[in-house]
Amino acid sequence: MSSSSGTATIASINDEILALQDKIKELKVSKQDASAEVNSMKALKEQLKALKKEGGDENASGSSSSNLQLKTPKGTIDHKPEATLLRKKIFNTLENIFLKHDASTIDTPVFELKEILAGKYGEDSKLIYDLSDQGGELCSLRYDLTVPFARYVAMNGITSMKRYHIGKVYRRDQPVMTKGRMREFYQCDIDFAGSSDPMVYDSEILKILCEALTALDIGQYTVKINHRKILDGIFQLAGVPSDKTRSISSAVDKLDKLPWADVKKEMTVEKGLDEKVADKIGQYVGLKGPGYDVLEKLKSDQELMAIPLAKQGITDMEILFRYLNVYKVLDKMSFDMSLARGLDYYTGIIYEAIHESSAPPSKSVNPSVPASSEISTTSGSKPSKSSSSSSSKSNAIVNEDGIDESTIGVGSIAAGGRYDNLVGMFAESAGKKLNEQVPCVGVSVGVERVYSIMEQRRKQTKEKVRGKETQVFILGLGGIELEKRMQIATLLWDNGIKTSFSPKVNPKPPAQWKQADDDQIPFVLILAPKEFSEGKVRIKAQLGKEENQSGNAEDNKGVEVELSNVVDYLKDQLSKL
Amino acid sequence: MSSSSGTATIASINDEILALQDKIKELKVSKQDASAEVNSMKALKEQLKALKKEGGDENASGSSSSNLQLKTPKGTIDHKPEATLLRKKIFNTLENIFLKHDASTIDTPVFELKEILAGKYGEDSKLIYDLSDQGGELCSLRYDLTVPFARYVAMNGITSMKRYHIGKVYRRDQPVMTKGRMREFYQCDIDFAGSSDPMVYDSEILKILCEALTALDIGQYTVKINHRKILDGIFQLAGVPSDKTRSISSAVDKLDKLPWADVKKEMTVEKGLDEKVADKIGQYVGLKGPGYDVLEKLKSDQELMAIPLAKQGITDMEILFRYLNVYKVLDKMSFDMSLARGLDYYTGIIYEAIHESSAPPSKSVNPSVPASSEISTTSGSKPSKSSSSSSSKSNAIVNEDGIDESTIGVGSIAAGGRYDNLVGMFAESAGKKLNEQVPCVGVSVGVERVYSIMEQRRKQTKEKVRGKETQVFILGLGGIELEKRMQIATLLWDNGIKTSFSPKVNPKPPAQWKQADDDQIPFVLILAPKEFSEGKVRIKAQLGKEENQSGNAEDNKGVEVELSNVVDYLKDQLSKL
Repeated sequence: MSSSSGTATIASINDEILALQDKIKELKVSKQDASAEVNSMKALKEQLKALKKEGGDENASGSSSSNLQLKTPKGTIDHKPEATLLRKKIFNTLENIFLKHDASTIDTPVFELKEILAGKYGEDSKLIYDLSDQGGELCSLRYDLTVPFARYVAMNGITSMKRYHIGKVYRRDQPVMTKGRMREFYQCDIDFAGSSDPMVYDSEILKILCEALTALDIGQYTVKINHRKILDGIFQLAGVPSDKTRSISSAVDKLDKLPWADVKKEMTVEKGLDEKVADKIGQYVGLKGPGYDVLEKLKSDQELMAIPLAKQGITDMEILFRYLNVYKVLDKMSFDMSLARGLDYYTGIIYEAIHESSAPPSKSVNPSVPASSEISTTSGSKPSKSSSSSSSKSNAIVNEDGIDESTIGVGSIAAGGRYDNLVGMFAESAGKKLNEQVPCVGVSVGVERVYSIMEQRRKQTKEKVRGKETQVFILGLGGIELEKRMQIATLLWDNGIKTSFSPKVNPKPPAQWKQADDDQIPFVLILAPKEFSEGKVRIKAQLGKEENQSGNAEDNKGVEVELSNVVDYLKDQLSKL
Repeated sequence: MSSSSGTATIASINDEILALQDKIKELKVSKQDASAEVNSMKALKEQLKALKKEGGDENASGSSSSNLQLKTPKGTIDHKPEATLLRKKIFNTLENIFLKHDASTIDTPVFELKEILAGKYGEDSKLIYDLSDQGGELCSLRYDLTVPFARYVAMNGITSMKRYHIGKVYRRDQPVMTKGRMREFYQCDIDFAGSSDPMVYDSEILKILCEALTALDIGQYTVKINHRKILDGIFQLAGVPSDKTRSISSAVDKLDKLPWADVKKEMTVEKGLDEKVADKIGQYVGLKGPGYDVLEKLKSDQELMAIPLAKQGITDMEILFRYLNVYKVLDKMSFDMSLARGLDYYTGIIYEAIHESSAPPSKSVNPSVPASSEISTTSGSKPSKSSSSSSSKSNAIVNEDGIDESTIGVGSIAAGGRYDNLVGMFAESAGKKLNEQVPCVGVSVGVERVYSIMEQRRKQTKEKVRGKETQVFILGLGGIELEKRMQIATLLWDNGIKTSFSPKVNPKPPAQWKQADDDQIPFVLILAPKEFSEGKVRIKAQLGKEENQSGNAEDNKGVEVELSNVVDYLKDQLSKL
């Protein structure tokens, strides 16, 4: 890095900052240490600020027109061709599974009326993006796909619907780009609305989740599962005042990131809970393990079973596990009393899928809850709960906000639950009478996190990914006019063959070979004047050849094919790829 | 419609308004007259306003919490399952064509830094949606996919790229929902960035456009084409001051909606152009017809050919038509001097595809420009240029803004052009030095308009569209437990067969038959206790049968299949559909 001397101008510092930004992005993408670059950039920005003050500050708004920032907004990225293609594969995999399960899809606007989103997200409401008030209605970008779905169901008076939706959602959160935590990101949701007998839809949603995570082929995963009614029953038993239920619940939910001592402190010091009450909660929230093991433990707890709410939840879980067993996915579940989920609207079972890479890479495990009641899970891929400072400084990936991203796991890769009142809430506040309640249950797959896991795996195997699907390159040797290449291209395009050629009137052969090589195009169709006048072309397979790097066409005569037979020949060859 | 009596309450009027809104939407979708309903709704809203004033107006902001509007924001809609599926088919058709032409895809954020969009859209910049300033960067929703693409190319220092992008864009325009003019709508763009020899990329983009419109199978279309340099040459010849070029150009562009007299008035009265200058323009802008005809006419115009800019444009067009002829799409073109395109950034050829339904349905044609120079197009599907008041009042579809949508055509169904300076502009204003200019040419297909044409055609043919793809319904007769149905469903799902069943523990057979019928599921797999205990099921094809409406299973025994053979049997049957 060049040190900026005393004679630095605003323009030269800007140039350095831009170069550093590129460098940092590059380092991050390749998971290398960029902390030195980040520090340099910060220093340069300070210097720039000082220089601008000296200079008279003619641009009070801070952005002079000669200093346009060529970047995407914070927390967003451009998905490049290879990344877009890989995402499309993820979407297709999920979509095929959703379609297998009787679902249809809808497409709702990216923004909703602001009041539709109001009061749905608890403490996270501050993360909602609002549109500017430019006259007319006040709108916000959607925060998830669940609330728009409930609005859709209520608005259209639907009583039963299985719908999936793949789309972008928006959260003004602190981004951790390398872990797929972004401000704009895709969600893939499936939700079943309407009455079913107890746990029928719930179990199918969990079956779908397991089919999806298995089909995505990203390695070991566990579905942590709990029931809001059991949790609320525990709070009742412990003596949590009913107005504190949701806020204590959201404290419990932090147990995957904080040790019990910290969570207890939040309950007692911050939220004013009696210490004895907190301790009673502490007796339960460490309980986790295979479904039937935890279930037995809860059923033998006479104190808890005496709370009707808890008993209801426990009965639900018993039915659920029976169905999950038929669906052959019970072994993927970990019944986990510490799972609470932040959202206000859940009313029944809640779940969260975690992946072996969900936890921070740091290996130091801190026993986070009283260990007495812990039952090991069958899958054995329990994430570490440590949030203690990482000691692996050498792998630090410090981002622009000064956060070391290497200490952060990707978090859960899917989550969801049952929400029986959301549709009714919408209908009611719109003054619409519903003939029946429309209970819902659903799950959302965090595609960005799945993507970042897949991307890491792909890098390890060094698998090559093409950004385009072009199959044939038409190469003209000396004297072949552009129109001849266009004519053959038209023939191939009209027969569905993906084709390209040089956009030059008289391109040199080496430049043409390079274009075909750069794009990894599997076949080159060679037009040579003499052969072409006899109605013949040569076709050369490029796959797997390394000898042609010289750009010398002479060693690669290829196969001679009659012009009238070109389409059939290529189709046959392409079908063998 | 029930008349609201003097005893109407706010709540009862709200109910009536909501019911009317539903009714209006329904009528509009089925293209029926809703003007009476719209008028009633307006009256009710007035009444409501008056009542609220009387009542003390405690909610100054106008939206009381007990009166949540269950709707999507103005100009946006929910795409329902059938509509989403049809759109997906359009996207797939286009994507396959784009991939054939060597393109890859990218996915950019839905919002950009506000300054990225600034100064790109001329008079239409006022239609940009801004995000609220919640701290941090100022952002706007993207207005098109072209500017984000140019930003991407400049930001990544790309010198050559063929990219397509299918995504939603946002414009705070006056919506005309039944014609597919919305505030949130999809664009499907393909753009070639980088140098080619003259008109090579331009001609391929037009070839792609024609392939796309032909493949979409929506009927006759014409591509109006012109060249900015010829237009600017005409302005130069006529004596338009150079600072007025773009504003006069945007006046010319209105010739597809306004008669020449009105456009001339805009030029002279509003924009202060000398009348003689306007008349000179008028001599040219009526010129249109098959490419070579118009080209001959222009080439023989010595006055015009003496203007270097015009001559350059004319030479371009001559090369272009030669290539389009090789590509067999020249006959789709109408060389049209009145085409100017509103956007600031075009520098070369510009084009717009119009469909036979692009013009308003009104049959009264007003000769809008001096007729002297008109050459009829080969395709013969020229749209009427009339904007005179429609006389077909009986088909009026009056929208909430009081606009009769039946008088408005869908407009152009695709548009684009060459823009050689946009990438350079970005690079330059970011202080980035480019080694070479990155010229671009591209086209954007207006999917919503294509969709609304397809939807109208589908309605005429009464073609049925399913919103889901479920293939088999598992029906249990008396005594078959839910778990048995779940078990068979698991077998089918695990073998890729799209399957559903009733979510009840003990569903009645008629309710099950109804579910299968409602969802138009082609096969019903029947589990009966006795047969099932012998390892057999019955499978019944439901397609084309009308006799089963009674819900009586007795007439439909179906085919008996061994349990071990169910998957193979169904796969075989499904492959024949």
